[in-house]
Amino acid sequence: MSKIKLTIEYVGTDFCGWQSQTNGISVQDTVERALGNYFDCPPIRIYAAGRTDVGVHAKGQVAHFFPPKDVNPYKLCLGVNLNLPNTVAVVHAETVPDNFDARFSAVSKTYCYRLYVSATRKPTLDVTHAQVYRPLDVEKMQKACQLLQGTHDFSAFQKTGSNLKGTIRTINFFNVVDNADGTIYLTVNGNAFLYNQVRIMAGLLVQVGSGKKTLEDVSAMLNGEKRTVKTMPAKGLTLEQVFYD
Amino acid sequence: MSKIKLTIEYVGTDFCGWQSQTNGISVQDTVERALGNYFDCPPIRIYAAGRTDVGVHAKGQVAHFFPPKDVNPYKLCLGVNLNLPNTVAVVHAETVPDNFDARFSAVSKTYCYRLYVSATRKPTLDVTHAQVYRPLDVEKMQKACQLLQGTHDFSAFQKTGSNLKGTIRTINFFNVVDNADGTIYLTVNGNAFLYNQVRIMAGLLVQVGSGKKTLEDVSAMLNGEKRTVKTMPAKGLTLEQVFYD
Repeated sequence: MSKIKLTIEYVGTDFCGWQSQTNGISVQDTVERALGNYFDCPPIRIYAAGRTDVGVHAKGQVAHFFPPKDVNPYKLCLGVNLNLPNTVAVVHAETVPDNFDARFSAVSKTYCYRLYVSATRKPTLDVTHAQVYRPLDVEKMQKACQLLQGTHDFSAFQKTGSNLKGTIRTINFFNVVDNADGTIYLTVNGNAFLYNQVRIMAGLLVQVGSGKKTLEDVSAMLNGEKRTVKTMPAKGLTLEQVFYD
Repeated sequence: MSKIKLTIEYVGTDFCGWQSQTNGISVQDTVERALGNYFDCPPIRIYAAGRTDVGVHAKGQVAHFFPPKDVNPYKLCLGVNLNLPNTVAVVHAETVPDNFDARFSAVSKTYCYRLYVSATRKPTLDVTHAQVYRPLDVEKMQKACQLLQGTHDFSAFQKTGSNLKGTIRTINFFNVVDNADGTIYLTVNGNAFLYNQVRIMAGLLVQVGSGKKTLEDVSAMLNGEKRTVKTMPAKGLTLEQVFYD
């Protein structure tokens, strides 16, 4: 039987995150059950590139599994989707060599943090964007992104209470795009990220854009100064793509 | 008391449409109740630029009403939003002259019909976009839009069984935009539209884009030939903006 690589898209709002939990419905459980239904067997265990937190979305989560019998990947895709709720779908499926591992073969991941600038709430954007109330200086934010790019000790950019030893990570690119419709996309690619790192970096960029933090503050955080930046809400974050060699 | 003009945004998915119905929750009821809560009185009747159907969204629905007491429009906006569900918000409020009427003062409306091209369902787009399975010839669709622009008898572009006498309408502009992310936006502005007209025109454009209809078929429909085009799903349609002098 050939190993299968799935690319999975989901709106995370109503899930307790990617990983199975006792206190809610996870994306993982939902897909595992749908695969079981498709193959007419118990839920099939899948292995993802990484966990996404409660409320975080994905356009390109990747997971691998061994099917109980050989199957045409495109037919699998369509068939499994019939067993999934509106909020989750397998957008691509392909066979991969046995040594492919969704997590350990990944070389980098791209996340996008989406903002919209508005004094009032915008329901059509609010599902996948975080609201900021006043205009941001996007040029200054782009300069901050340039500082964050590269290899740094990101210990100041992790969830409070984390006690991880190795906190050096590499950011390959970090871009700010100011769209015509009042939305701002913060797109970051890196080899790996600390817990909550993208949402904390997004919080720092918003503070830079609103003048509450300077580029010097960014450098200070990269030099390990304790953070005074809030973690942005999960709903603005989307795992866009996982890259493999 | 000064008349107030509200601009309202909503995700139509879970509503029975704009107008109050006996068989579901309407956007109108929801906003009227929220205004009542804000002013601590029974629901306040509001008058909209037009009804939107079940499942149709809006970024710029407009409605007017008389408040029971004078109020700062911006504070009203924020206060009413606290009484609204996530799927509806007042995005702007302003005082207007007494002779302003959300419906009768309107000179034109812009709608956008959103499509995404994908062989598989995409959950993050599926709320506000309709899926088409194969690539479309956008250049040909743009040519069809040019034919639809102007003043025509749109009798072939209304809901089956409609028995309206005056079916002449003017389309001021109709554009197709092919976005980099695989979405296609059909944006149309007109002085008024027949029932389901935008969704039928979107259906025709999709058939032109997929080669199932020709530009000659478009002309034939404009000359009153009975339609053989499906009405596209409500979820792809958004009332973008209502224009006033």
